[in-house]
Amino acid sequence: MKHHVYGVILAGGSGTRFWPLSRERFPKQLLRIIGEGTLLQQTFERLIQDIPPRHMTIVTNDVQADSIKLQLNEWKDDLVDNIILEPGGRNTAPAIALTALQLVHRDPEAVMVVVPADHVVKAEKKFMKAVKFATKLAVQGHLVTFGIHPSRPETGYGYIQPNKRKRVETQGSFVGYSVARFVEKPNLPTAQRYYRSGNFFWNSGIFVWKAAAILEELALQQPKLAKILKALGKHVGTPEFPEALRKAYAKMPSLSIDHAVMEHSSRSVVVPVDFGWSDVGSWGSLEEVAPLDKSGNVRNGNILDIGSQNSVLFGDRRLVATIGLDNMVVIDTPDATLVCPKDRAQDVKAIVNLLKKQKAPEHLEHRRVQRPWGAYTVLEEGNGYKVKRIEVIPGKRLSLQLHHQRSEHWVVITGTARVTRGEEVYDLQAGMSTGIPKESPHRLENPGQSLLEIIEIQNGPYLGEDDIVRLKDDFGRLKPV
Amino acid sequence: MKHHVYGVILAGGSGTRFWPLSRERFPKQLLRIIGEGTLLQQTFERLIQDIPPRHMTIVTNDVQADSIKLQLNEWKDDLVDNIILEPGGRNTAPAIALTALQLVHRDPEAVMVVVPADHVVKAEKKFMKAVKFATKLAVQGHLVTFGIHPSRPETGYGYIQPNKRKRVETQGSFVGYSVARFVEKPNLPTAQRYYRSGNFFWNSGIFVWKAAAILEELALQQPKLAKILKALGKHVGTPEFPEALRKAYAKMPSLSIDHAVMEHSSRSVVVPVDFGWSDVGSWGSLEEVAPLDKSGNVRNGNILDIGSQNSVLFGDRRLVATIGLDNMVVIDTPDATLVCPKDRAQDVKAIVNLLKKQKAPEHLEHRRVQRPWGAYTVLEEGNGYKVKRIEVIPGKRLSLQLHHQRSEHWVVITGTARVTRGEEVYDLQAGMSTGIPKESPHRLENPGQSLLEIIEIQNGPYLGEDDIVRLKDDFGRLKPV
Repeated sequence: MKHHVYGVILAGGSGTRFWPLSRERFPKQLLRIIGEGTLLQQTFERLIQDIPPRHMTIVTNDVQADSIKLQLNEWKDDLVDNIILEPGGRNTAPAIALTALQLVHRDPEAVMVVVPADHVVKAEKKFMKAVKFATKLAVQGHLVTFGIHPSRPETGYGYIQPNKRKRVETQGSFVGYSVARFVEKPNLPTAQRYYRSGNFFWNSGIFVWKAAAILEELALQQPKLAKILKALGKHVGTPEFPEALRKAYAKMPSLSIDHAVMEHSSRSVVVPVDFGWSDVGSWGSLEEVAPLDKSGNVRNGNILDIGSQNSVLFGDRRLVATIGLDNMVVIDTPDATLVCPKDRAQDVKAIVNLLKKQKAPEHLEHRRVQRPWGAYTVLEEGNGYKVKRIEVIPGKRLSLQLHHQRSEHWVVITGTARVTRGEEVYDLQAGMSTGIPKESPHRLENPGQSLLEIIEIQNGPYLGEDDIVRLKDDFGRLKPV
Repeated sequence: MKHHVYGVILAGGSGTRFWPLSRERFPKQLLRIIGEGTLLQQTFERLIQDIPPRHMTIVTNDVQADSIKLQLNEWKDDLVDNIILEPGGRNTAPAIALTALQLVHRDPEAVMVVVPADHVVKAEKKFMKAVKFATKLAVQGHLVTFGIHPSRPETGYGYIQPNKRKRVETQGSFVGYSVARFVEKPNLPTAQRYYRSGNFFWNSGIFVWKAAAILEELALQQPKLAKILKALGKHVGTPEFPEALRKAYAKMPSLSIDHAVMEHSSRSVVVPVDFGWSDVGSWGSLEEVAPLDKSGNVRNGNILDIGSQNSVLFGDRRLVATIGLDNMVVIDTPDATLVCPKDRAQDVKAIVNLLKKQKAPEHLEHRRVQRPWGAYTVLEEGNGYKVKRIEVIPGKRLSLQLHHQRSEHWVVITGTARVTRGEEVYDLQAGMSTGIPKESPHRLENPGQSLLEIIEIQNGPYLGEDDIVRLKDDFGRLKPV
């Protein structure tokens, strides 16, 4: 059976609840919040313990694709054609349907293990055992979801009630129950009742089923969506697919797979599990999964603390000094800092909305912005100038470009820079510099084996990223960013 | 009488309680905490409403002298020879004695108005009226101090009890009482008793007396100190004075003027006043003097807040987002952030001590470091490179210098740079650049009428400030900093 199992990582979420560490263009799954690697990397590595990397599919979007490819660079050869770009966000049902469509085309017997990219699973072995059990049920035609044993009366999750009289399968400690009902996020008294009853489980958002089965069930429960899918299905594997996908998505409803299928289907099965799952929904919930110091604090980065307890203190290289905090959240990033009580951490959403309204850059991007060729960090901006540190990955180069409104100076600080300026091409080493006059076509390339870093000083009346006229580009970006 | 009145500002305090806004080399008096100008500038401008600027003396030390001269640049012609540099910190008695010594030499009838540089006075006119009244008493030979009507049972100040039966002078609402006793910082029950009694006043640390009178009283109460002073007195106005001062200070005891004289002298008089005084002793006390928003917050800089109250939120250009804080202090600076409850604000001292032990730069200096020619800001440091923004005041120039271990690149971002490199001298405008090889003598000068700003990129294995070999300098700094 194992060779029909496919991993599907849903990595399109945007999420604002981890601001200022997350940004609109750099959401939670791309963050290194706990342990080694980012949540996306952890999710990927968890699955490939039993699923071959070339059986992995990532569903994401245009904005995050470059960052995701960078983070999964180690497996880039396995992932060719396996990164699906949604033309827009339509919740989980269309993303899952689209992936199922491609998988049945590739393998009619395909079993999909669908996981969000931004959740934490502490007990990896237990998780893979649960997946094996669920796969067995999936092959029988069931639509399997994992139910998490609640550890508190949480109002932030949906719940699943099993029909305890309908066991569809048992193996060791695992039992698959037919689902009695799905419940939306409850209010506190209801959540308390669920918690005490022992008969309700948190909806983990992790699913296992045959691709063919979920498509059949979609056809049954969501005829409108199924019709759009069917039309799209004809183009799978053809050059027309991207354009057909764009058109299909424009018509697609925004629906969760729970609403679309699971709540209505007689094939829904819940497997209660206990593999240390958390959706790490906010800064306040980090303490569930991150290691704590002896005073109950989550600590990261350059924190100097005297006597704080039960707080989340998350810094970077800058110094953050804290004294006597209790149940507080302090998050420091190069361009923005958040301070709030733990029980107000959900309200960071409101901060992000305010920033959006003010068109402040701090909601959108980090000071360090990733690009397919590397990254740049704005060190300082002032009247008529901007200073950037630019990192170029070995073998990569920026577009051949010119600027109408600014001149640039480049000083190499590490590695070798190959500079194209007009008709000239020359190499610079650390400590060497060059000037690029405005209107002059130029290109920066790293011909070496190690990272190239330069300091760029821009001078001019207008220094926006949209004064880039791209003449040639390795990454198909011939319009301004 | 007026032409015998002299202002003396004690500006040697170092203080750590306003960290991270204050630093060891940039203490409270140099900060813009409330209103227009720094506390030092406000103190100076308050006094010169009635005292001619050339009658003002600033007592400070080597570390702060440059910053103080910059802040009082407008009066630099009046202050020639009137900035006294103490060779070391010895509390207020030696600083006052030293100034008195120089003043009697200049004017035997001199009346000194001695004020700390880092206090706030909200009612300036009332203050100057009180000074006039005190001057009258000083001329009669009294040693006058101002007592502040307590507004709460504060345990952080010393108290003065007047002898209500001994009125030495009355005029309008002003009364001068002979002092019954000075009391050290009391415990809370005692402070509460003092507060209720209405017969105790806070010791403001502001004094008015004849220079000759305080010297006579010092001779009486502190014979050892007086002996050192007498020996030093012979050198006032001679070229040997600085060296004699250094030797005298090495022998000088560290003593407050209260302990040294006021507590023991029968000439001590207290004038109760109410001119909106505060010593702004900590971040927590800022609310007494700074304007509050409608939720009782002190706010400064780029703060985005939702629902905080009674908090001190002090930022700069970086974004600080706060949610639902209550009685908290959040202080953000380019290289360090402090977060603590208001009632723990005094403990910032412990943070500074920890930083000192760790030899962390954040206790000593700001990222922007002032120099007699302007200032520099380290934008980024990394392995083998450092990026600075350098500001040069019109007409000023850095030393002619060379570096053994680094090359430098300069890019002008605003103004005109006159560059000396080896034998060459040339001017650069905004957008132009030049490279300085290691071992090459060079100098940067601002020949223009407006501020010159350049970005400097240093490359080399060692980038410390002590790899500066100064060949010529306008500011007498021929050794490394």
